[in-house]
Amino acid sequence: MSFYSSRDEVIKIILARKISFGLKWTQIAERIGCSKEWTTAACLGQMKFGENEANKMVEIFRLVPEAKYWLTTAPSRGSSSASTSKDPLLYRFQEVINIYGGALKELINEQFGDGIMSAVDFKLNLEKEPSNEGDRVKITMSGKFLPYKPF
Amino acid sequence: MSFYSSRDEVIKIILARKISFGLKWTQIAERIGCSKEWTTAACLGQMKFGENEANKMVEIFRLVPEAKYWLTTAPSRGSSSASTSKDPLLYRFQEVINIYGGALKELINEQFGDGIMSAVDFKLNLEKEPSNEGDRVKITMSGKFLPYKPF
Amino acid sequence: MSFYSSRDEVIKIILARKISFGLKWTQIAERIGCSKEWTTAACLGQMKFGENEANKMVEIFRLVPEAKYWLTTAPSRGSSSASTSKDPLLYRFQEVINIYGGALKELINEQFGDGIMSAVDFKLNLEKEPSNEGDRVKITMSGKFLPYKPF
Amino acid sequence: MSFYSSRDEVIKIILARKISFGLKWTQIAERIGCSKEWTTAACLGQMKFGENEANKMVEIFRLVPEAKYWLTTAPSRGSSSASTSKDPLLYRFQEVINIYGGALKELINEQFGDGIMSAVDFKLNLEKEPSNEGDRVKITMSGKFLPYKPF
Amino acid sequence: MSFYSSRDEVIKIILARKISFGLKWTQIAERIGCSKEWTTAACLGQMKFGENEANKMVEIFRLVPEAKYWLTTAPSRGSSSASTSKDPLLYRFQEVINIYGGALKELINEQFGDGIMSAVDFKLNLEKEPSNEGDRVKITMSGKFLPYKPF
Amino acid sequence: MSFYSSRDEVIKIILARKISFGLKWTQIAERIGCSKEWTTAACLGQMKFGENEANKMVEIFRLVPEAKYWLTTAPSRGSSSASTSKDPLLYRFQEVINIYGGALKELINEQFGDGIMSAVDFKLNLEKEPSNEGDRVKITMSGKFLPYKPF
Amino acid sequence: MSFYSSRDEVIKIILARKISFGLKWTQIAERIGCSKEWTTAACLGQMKFGENEANKMVEIFRLVPEAKYWLTTAPSRGSSSASTSKDPLLYRFQEVINIYGGALKELINEQFGDGIMSAVDFKLNLEKEPSNEGDRVKITMSGKFLPYKPF
Amino acid sequence: MSFYSSRDEVIKIILARKISFGLKWTQIAERIGCSKEWTTAACLGQMKFGENEANKMVEIFRLVPEAKYWLTTAPSRGSSSASTSKDPLLYRFQEVINIYGGALKELINEQFGDGIMSAVDFKLNLEKEPSNEGDRVKITMSGKFLPYKPF
Amino acid sequence: MSFYSSRDEVIKIILARKISFGLKWTQIAERIGCSKEWTTAACLGQMKFGENEANKMVEIFRLVPEAKYWLTTAPSRGSSSASTSKDPLLYRFQEVINIYGGALKELINEQFGDGIMSAVDFKLNLEKEPSNEGDRVKITMSGKFLPYKPF
Amino acid sequence: MSFYSSRDEVIKIILARKISFGLKWTQIAERIGCSKEWTTAACLGQMKFGENEANKMVEIFRLVPEAKYWLTTAPSRGSSSASTSKDPLLYRFQEVINIYGGALKELINEQFGDGIMSAVDFKLNLEKEPSNEGDRVKITMSGKFLPYKPF
Repeated sequence: MSFYSSRDEVIKIILARKISFGLKWTQIAERIGCSKEWTTAACLGQMKFGENEANKMVEIFRLVPEAKYWLTTAPSRGSSSASTSKDPLLYRFQEVINIYGGALKELINEQFGDGIMSAVDFKLNLEKEPSNEGDRVKITMSGKFLPYKPF
Repeated sequence: MSFYSSRDEVIKIILARKISFGLKWTQIAERIGCSKEWTTAACLGQMKFGENEANKMVEIFRLVPEAKYWLTTAPSRGSSSASTSKDPLLYRFQEVINIYGGALKELINEQFGDGIMSAVDFKLNLEKEPSNEGDRVKITMSGKFLPYKPF
Repeated sequence: MSFYSSRDEVIKIILARKISFGLKWTQIAERIGCSKEWTTAACLGQMKFGENEANKMVEIFRLVPEAKYWLTTAPSRGSSSASTSKDPLLYRFQEVINIYGGALKELINEQFGDGIMSAVDFKLNLEKEPSNEGDRVKITMSGKFLPYKPF
Repeated sequence: MSFYSSRDEVIKIILARKISFGLKWTQIAERIGCSKEWTTAACLGQMKFGENEANKMVEIFRLVPEAKYWLTTAPSRGSSSASTSKDPLLYRFQEVINIYGGALKELINEQFGDGIMSAVDFKLNLEKEPSNEGDRVKITMSGKFLPYKPF
Repeated sequence: MSFYSSRDEVIKIILARKISFGLKWTQIAERIGCSKEWTTAACLGQMKFGENEANKMVEIFRLVPEAKYWLTTAPSRGSSSASTSKDPLLYRFQEVINIYGGALKELINEQFGDGIMSAVDFKLNLEKEPSNEGDRVKITMSGKFLPYKPF
Repeated sequence: MSFYSSRDEVIKIILARKISFGLKWTQIAERIGCSKEWTTAACLGQMKFGENEANKMVEIFRLVPEAKYWLTTAPSRGSSSASTSKDPLLYRFQEVINIYGGALKELINEQFGDGIMSAVDFKLNLEKEPSNEGDRVKITMSGKFLPYKPF
Repeated sequence: MSFYSSRDEVIKIILARKISFGLKWTQIAERIGCSKEWTTAACLGQMKFGENEANKMVEIFRLVPEAKYWLTTAPSRGSSSASTSKDPLLYRFQEVINIYGGALKELINEQFGDGIMSAVDFKLNLEKEPSNEGDRVKITMSGKFLPYKPF
Repeated sequence: MSFYSSRDEVIKIILARKISFGLKWTQIAERIGCSKEWTTAACLGQMKFGENEANKMVEIFRLVPEAKYWLTTAPSRGSSSASTSKDPLLYRFQEVINIYGGALKELINEQFGDGIMSAVDFKLNLEKEPSNEGDRVKITMSGKFLPYKPF
Repeated sequence: MSFYSSRDEVIKIILARKISFGLKWTQIAERIGCSKEWTTAACLGQMKFGENEANKMVEIFRLVPEAKYWLTTAPSRGSSSASTSKDPLLYRFQEVINIYGGALKELINEQFGDGIMSAVDFKLNLEKEPSNEGDRVKITMSGKFLPYKPF
Repeated sequence: MSFYSSRDEVIKIILARKISFGLKWTQIAERIGCSKEWTTAACLGQMKFGENEANKMVEIFRLVPEAKYWLTTAPSRGSSSASTSKDPLLYRFQEVINIYGGALKELINEQFGDGIMSAVDFKLNLEKEPSNEGDRVKITMSGKFLPYKPF
């Protein structure tokens, strides 16, 4: 009996087949029926697939049926192998926090009161912003404001 | 002669006077003539003020004139005291990178090619997004795409 | 003009006066009108006081009126000097996470679905549980469940 | 002769079979005859099984009999692979300590005297707290108070 | 009014006066009425003094009366400035754990069952063991065994 | 030809067979002819076996003769897999150093002069200390005092 | 079907074959048609190959055709196994930053204004500089200046 | 008697006066008679001044004569306050090492043999490279090649 | 075709065969024709072998001829598996630096001027120094002095 | 009454006066009557002075008599401010351990048996070794061999 012993094994196969099948993230997202941002995060092992989405994943990547059990399990988030902070693209986001983090905290406190932006009730969008001086990357985050309250 | 021995000293006075003068970041930004995001980051010591902006800062916060020399010097960025990653509001941004960083890298590579989003030629915007289920924090980043090229 | 240059300065005075005035946390909480858990966290600099609570703090600890401005500002959370993880009492909480953290994750996923327990929409209660074999410390946490959803 | 060379190997098989057998933690706990919290922690390798419980584990997960020897050995606690602190659910517990740790120390000292809450003579309970504004996660910890005494 | 703003300040004065008064730890312990090990740890800020012991401390070190309030407060343990692990004498204890820690765990598990040696219900004794080949340092630890139990 | 490629491999087999052969550390120590403390540390890879002891190890654990070469080699100490400091039993020893380390340094300096307790010319003993209020773990360390001398 | 499951696997084969085929980096660079600096970085997994360059790589190192898919994918940069900072040659570059980093920042600010040297729009050149007192290593970096601008 | 108690104190005064005197690094270098790169590093506390250069420093910055003693002492290098790696300009140099470090090692080994580039017998040069697409920062390093030899 | 995929593989085989062939480092050094210190470092993977020495290594350890290619490649230094700083013998060298490092810096500066002792143009010698009170380990280091010079 | 509140304060004054008095370490050592290596380490706060040596220190550096009490106290070793590992001179010693540490361990084991070189019963000597190709730094260490013995 074919047998995957961990979620990581399933994810690794998905990534390798995406390369050799020549699939794009936007194509996968379309077939899954979710946004490209959520789908990519999910394929990198950061999200739990629903029943339907997992079935489509098995189909798209020709996985053994059992892989579905792993894909519909809640992942140990934040451990994607691609997330090492030495990568320049990923580091730039870190740098944005280092430099603008304090300002974001001050402004959220001023405009919303004392609280945080949720990273769970949260959406992310990435767009290409054409410009004469070269394309720009436009990233929009939207997270629910959660206030601290005395108890 | 009154004498500030470091940029940090000037910044600390600005922050303390903001509290005791009861000023808001948006008010300061308006008087400086820049966005609230840039102005707040600058007041937290992360940006270099231009001549005019520095003069206005001296005026608003009743600093000794010499403070201008420190404000128009390029700062050692990323060292704001407010930026400790244990703060929940700041940590949530870290979490967003941990979870969605890999997906952002994949999608930028797919849509733009091999390169990064600049954190220098970069703009940031924070808005309140009203919603029936509670306000949402909307953050928009826009950074120039910089491609890697063989040489 | 008396002048506090940081929130930390105000907090340090509060803690020193609590000792020399011989006040108990439960007494302070009663006068503030909040739970002992929230009040103690706030006095240690982890919460923002409301207007009324801040006025009472100024009164209880005979602070200069200006201290109120610092107490009603959102704090940089997670930086309390008492929080060093080498303290045995604090370390035991760390140990509970090291050992039971995985189990809590599995059970929350099983009973609630994929999501987290909020640490912001959150309440904490500490009680003494008398027992023949020695008193027990009973800690109850209650945090809103926030589900991850595809987008 | 079939041969497991480490406790980790046994644990890994248990977790994989739980997924493919479609078992729930509460079902396993019921068959083992312990609380769901202890059973889950034990299945994640954090607790030593007694003879009877180990026999039931071998039965439930169809392990080779020898697996019992590993399950009845005291584990190297705190090393569960699920415990990485980057996971948002697990991190929230860390955040609770960062923010409320100092307050818990102050209140335990005030109500019990100088000492700690044991993390060994300790019980944990997780419940679903239904609420109109969304379910809440309720966690109750109960640990023996251990006083420091001069000697 | 003379005013100590932290426990550390009191401890620092005690240590400096011990040097300039030429006192020995054993003499202080005798006057306090506790063991030399507990007394030294307490004078280094790791233990809470009782009322009587604190009064004697004020007397011995000619502290202002208010110092008593700080000495009778539970300390933030584990933060003594003398505890840096680069000191060779302190490092040797670390080395003993690195090398014999695993063996101690195995033997405690074998002789007592699954559990720990308490570091709170704990006593420490240091003696000189004369020997022809040079004196030996003899350290005896005695801590209550606390068993893990299923719940 | 059967061939072990590292000392770790031999140690791993010893530990696995101890479990499946149902051997106790005290039994192994008796057959080796050394103390239970030294024998356990040695079996965990922290000590070099002498010729005779290594021969007995080969016999007890039915190792291939060549294993003797690895057992009679000086180990890379301090790297036992059981030594992770997250384990509560092992951490308590760390805590003892954090809290009493400074006091031990002061008392050794006072009673012996400036120097250290050797961790090499060192013996360790573990005993069960029966008590009405529950058994106590008694650990005795004896290390040669090595004085610092000017040169 | 032959199948590489990660980019690292392809890179490892390239490095091993370079050694056993006796190829030089300058020879590979010549056949690829890029500078020796870019080519070496690319072969160490730090750059994305274009179609043509990847085809030549497959040819030079006799890789299975599928390897091309991995080579034309954007890498997770900064993770080369050769980059450990304990290597003396690599550490010297670290040391140059430690010592001259502050001076470079001051001079770039003075000559260009507030901004950075891009590490993406960046070229690197290594030359041998013959000298009577022994050869010198000459490294030339050229990166685009990116100014910070208020927004 | 005016008295500087550390080298850091002297350096801090130099940096503050440079700002308030409106001096440029190139002007200081010219008066000192060394390159702008060496002079700036020296003024940031990374180099030892010779007698003459130190005399000129005292003159330029109107230091008390005794400051010369500190400036002609060898510094504890690598500890400049400006060197924190979170600053984006400084981080880019780190990134260059992360990405190109392995390639530089390979090419130095290929062209020079087994050895290192000295960071002591080392020169640094910074130039502005005008370009239509924006100025470029050109940095040239030249360090003596030091070969490893068997002994 | 037999094929080593990394230098580490070759080193691991050398170390395992040294044990099972019963060879001494001094014997290997004699056959290689270099000092015992250099030879041992080289066999642990820290040095590059010359052609002749590599041929002798292949002969002594009966390696496949191809191993020579790896042995004559410059290693990634400082990564020997034996170098973990928890080993007491290795840690003592660390301790010598912690304690005497500052003194060595002061004395080298006083006797040689501002500069360093090279760790590349460097020789090492280990001898047994017999003594009535027990043998002593005598280690002699000789490294070229490299002066810092203004440029 | 003049009053030093810590050993560090005394050390800082000694270092500052050495600079302004223009004293050399060899001159101080001669007057103290110990080796230059021990004397320098002691003046940097790493060694305990005897009565006579401390009296001479008070005389040489014109300290207040009470300073003697601090100098004759055992120091917290390994914490000298000069010991930061980023300094190139100090780092080279670290590098020597990284590269030759494994070889030293192997050779000490081979020539002396299983044990360590003491860093306490230890002497250090620094000499200038003139050479045509530039002076060499010669460092000789001699430490007692301490064997591990079964017990």
